[in-house]
Amino acid sequence: MKLLEQKIINDGIALEGNILKVDSFLNHQIDVLFMDKLGKEFSRLFSGLSATKILTVEASGIALSCALAKYLKLPVLFAKKGNRANIGADVYFAASYSYTHKSEYIMTVSRKYLSSCDKIIIIDDFLAKGNALSGLISISQQAGCEILGIGIAIEKAFEGGGDALRQEGFNLCSLAIVESMDNGDIVFRQ
Amino acid sequence: MKLLEQKIINDGIALEGNILKVDSFLNHQIDVLFMDKLGKEFSRLFSGLSATKILTVEASGIALSCALAKYLKLPVLFAKKGNRANIGADVYFAASYSYTHKSEYIMTVSRKYLSSCDKIIIIDDFLAKGNALSGLISISQQAGCEILGIGIAIEKAFEGGGDALRQEGFNLCSLAIVESMDNGDIVFRQ
Repeated sequence: MKLLEQKIINDGIALEGNILKVDSFLNHQIDVLFMDKLGKEFSRLFSGLSATKILTVEASGIALSCALAKYLKLPVLFAKKGNRANIGADVYFAASYSYTHKSEYIMTVSRKYLSSCDKIIIIDDFLAKGNALSGLISISQQAGCEILGIGIAIEKAFEGGGDALRQEGFNLCSLAIVESMDNGDIVFRQ
Repeated sequence: MKLLEQKIINDGIALEGNILKVDSFLNHQIDVLFMDKLGKEFSRLFSGLSATKILTVEASGIALSCALAKYLKLPVLFAKKGNRANIGADVYFAASYSYTHKSEYIMTVSRKYLSSCDKIIIIDDFLAKGNALSGLISISQQAGCEILGIGIAIEKAFEGGGDALRQEGFNLCSLAIVESMDNGDIVFRQ
């Protein structure tokens, strides 16, 4: 999606260690009207799939999921991180590792809201090695629901997670795929 | 807002310890079309204030803030919880205590995105004793920005936080104010 690539070039900051900061519009400050455009593009990519629900993980996936949900008229379900006193005991859970925060965490989803009747689209802001997605996929498999598609705003292809998921057969759509960002020079996959 | 009160009566669950679970539509699963109606009501309450930004805290405040932001065409800024490797060192921060999770935490906002030029509306899903709000107010004061209004979906009036903020002079608008919920009987303030 050229619009997102241009926004990354204009507003993103490439830092040492292949860190791409897009916190001016995506995952700290949120440009809601821009999110709407990403949501519309996801709705085009995932139209006609008869999904019942959108699954994401807090926090940065929520705004993007809501933008898509508005177009598809679906509920959003977000996995909670950590031990949460308010989610109850009847949960699916998965362990994940965050390279951003350099720590392991547990994500949980109440069994009440995900079942084998569901056909879901998984949404997240970033895909690098795929750790967060692995957690969401594990939870979906525990629930026995069908994963119709996975939508990502920014995929760092050089981390390998995205292509591994494609090889596993997942219908993965990333709106911007960063092939490399050596020396701060961001190159997108064509 | 009668619509929200009715939704709480229909879909909310009153648990022991004055816990009101609304995770079927507000803070785990999100009814995005319903959020849109809450956002529209906030936009009516806060119209004409010339706000520059909406401030909230992850994670449950994000969807509600985005719903309002769409109407007011403003960016959303969400405070991050915990020590986050990706937010940088140049931050405002405040300590808060979560009664839900029975633990202290730090919330942080990058100084890049909040300044004395900003006039903000603070949004959150719940207001009980007001701990999360105190953190957001502290951060706003550190930035020197003006707080034009505070919008809450559900206020538990019997916890006292809301009325204390009103006495301090804040322009606090809660869409549903639960006066009491003894024995699971939810009574709204008229």
